[in-house]
Amino acid sequence: MAEIAIGLHGGCGALAHDLQSAEDWAESRQHMADALRAGWHILRLGGSALDAVQATVVVLEDSPHFNAGHGAALTEGADHELDASIMDGATLAAGAVCTVRRTRNPVKLARAVLDSGRVVMLGGVAADRFAELQGLEMVPNTWFTTQRRIDAVRTLKEKEATGSFIPASEAEKHGTVGAVARDADGHLAAATSTGGFNNKLEGRIGDSPIIGAGTYARDGVCAVSCTGQGEIFIRRVAAYDIAARMQYAGQALDAAAHAVVFETLSSHAIGAGLVALGAEGNPVAPYNTLGMYRGWITTEGQLVVATHKDLHPMGPA
Amino acid sequence: MAEIAIGLHGGCGALAHDLQSAEDWAESRQHMADALRAGWHILRLGGSALDAVQATVVVLEDSPHFNAGHGAALTEGADHELDASIMDGATLAAGAVCTVRRTRNPVKLARAVLDSGRVVMLGGVAADRFAELQGLEMVPNTWFTTQRRIDAVRTLKEKEATGSFIPASEAEKHGTVGAVARDADGHLAAATSTGGFNNKLEGRIGDSPIIGAGTYARDGVCAVSCTGQGEIFIRRVAAYDIAARMQYAGQALDAAAHAVVFETLSSHAIGAGLVALGAEGNPVAPYNTLGMYRGWITTEGQLVVATHKDLHPMGPA
Repeated sequence: MAEIAIGLHGGCGALAHDLQSAEDWAESRQHMADALRAGWHILRLGGSALDAVQATVVVLEDSPHFNAGHGAALTEGADHELDASIMDGATLAAGAVCTVRRTRNPVKLARAVLDSGRVVMLGGVAADRFAELQGLEMVPNTWFTTQRRIDAVRTLKEKEATGSFIPASEAEKHGTVGAVARDADGHLAAATSTGGFNNKLEGRIGDSPIIGAGTYARDGVCAVSCTGQGEIFIRRVAAYDIAARMQYAGQALDAAAHAVVFETLSSHAIGAGLVALGAEGNPVAPYNTLGMYRGWITTEGQLVVATHKDLHPMGPA
Repeated sequence: MAEIAIGLHGGCGALAHDLQSAEDWAESRQHMADALRAGWHILRLGGSALDAVQATVVVLEDSPHFNAGHGAALTEGADHELDASIMDGATLAAGAVCTVRRTRNPVKLARAVLDSGRVVMLGGVAADRFAELQGLEMVPNTWFTTQRRIDAVRTLKEKEATGSFIPASEAEKHGTVGAVARDADGHLAAATSTGGFNNKLEGRIGDSPIIGAGTYARDGVCAVSCTGQGEIFIRRVAAYDIAARMQYAGQALDAAAHAVVFETLSSHAIGAGLVALGAEGNPVAPYNTLGMYRGWITTEGQLVVATHKDLHPMGPA
């Protein structure tokens, strides 16, 4: 059996330690551990990388600590529009959805789009209708709302009203989630899900549902899920650029991921991060912000999560 | 003054010669010539490649001969949902819109999104609302409808009803338009616009509004606009793959474009084509279908268009 591996991110731009309670930090770490175990369990039973990344992202979508699903950012219209995508490195099949408003788990909808084989990307009202036809769980838009996001938007709007041009912190803006996995057959997969950023323009689509920008997977090369200011990731075709550097320039995964985060994306003065696995399941998780929610299970089966510089070992997977 | 250049496509998968009247063929060639001249005129006056590709695409959107704007394909709901994008190779700024229903010229809306600097991609009802706020011309959805598309969808549905599984011809499915240009300052730009394909699922988003898939431009490398079955172009990150092959593997434009069309995309057994310019304005327009609407103005100022193998010189630009 080849070595299985899984990694996740819960968004770059974590808050400073003192801006959140110790309980909240501990719970967000626990939810990342739960998410990794959900995917790992599938991989251990011989399941696919595709199923594993979906299971991991579903846990993060359901957690209020991350900006995807329940806990998603609010648009300027004070509601939620969610984007997600998933890609199978074995077949290069992909599914993506954008500006979804009623589907509880957008990553499940992205997967249903992939499985349908009819299209790769579906948007808006029609995407929610497709979810309903597929029997996915539908929720009112308010299901995604948490008090934390309401408070954050209020703070943003108060700053605007007083003419204060203090930019929103990275943490207020970001928090996308994503996962990458390698299964026992050596196949890779990646998935990403997000609520975008607080006070975003309605109809705005970021990089998370864009194959090649926010998500990419190809067997024998890499699996990548990105987080940060999506507009720049789209313009730089960030996720695929890592694969292209590896395929065409012979760069190693860590060198390619480092170059994309610290040279390409950082040159635009944005917050940026990603989690990626190489063909053999080696994880990397570079970021240029104060912190990035992230975690992985080592090939020895040890679970590690982190929000800032220090790693938190969480014991055996 | 550096050499200016412009090229366009009006979609791969042109009909067999005998399936359309000589007058229709002549008119579609004339509209391509008009479109090229609209962009060329801007370039000759020292205007930007970005303005030139927009002007060229607007002419093609307004022509009933192409599957973009007026003349766009019909969804399964018998209306129109339009996708477009535009990219500035000088700054890597980009604008993209998807599933637009009321904006007469989606490429103008993509440009307005680019110019706004707020986001890169806008979708659905919100995108049309943004167009309205920008003062763009709005039209009823029926403005996009032509008798040819109604007839094509009826034929498709009749085939389905009789259990006939004859696949739609490439021409029934495709017809996306796009343009690439190089201006006197050496800057590159690309733009793409489409109605998708007849009887498409509502909410379906193809590669045309995806930066890196259907459209890409980067100064010193290339400008690319694609046409064909968009799902595969998304999964293969087709437009950016050409740039990546050039930047990282040192391939020449014609080799890179040839590999992407005849190896990567053709391996999926789909119709595929593109128009691209290299850094010096040299055009390429590979396609794997019976024909592809295409045209360019040579650096000597001679205008050439084509729908099938033979080139039609149209005299000086």
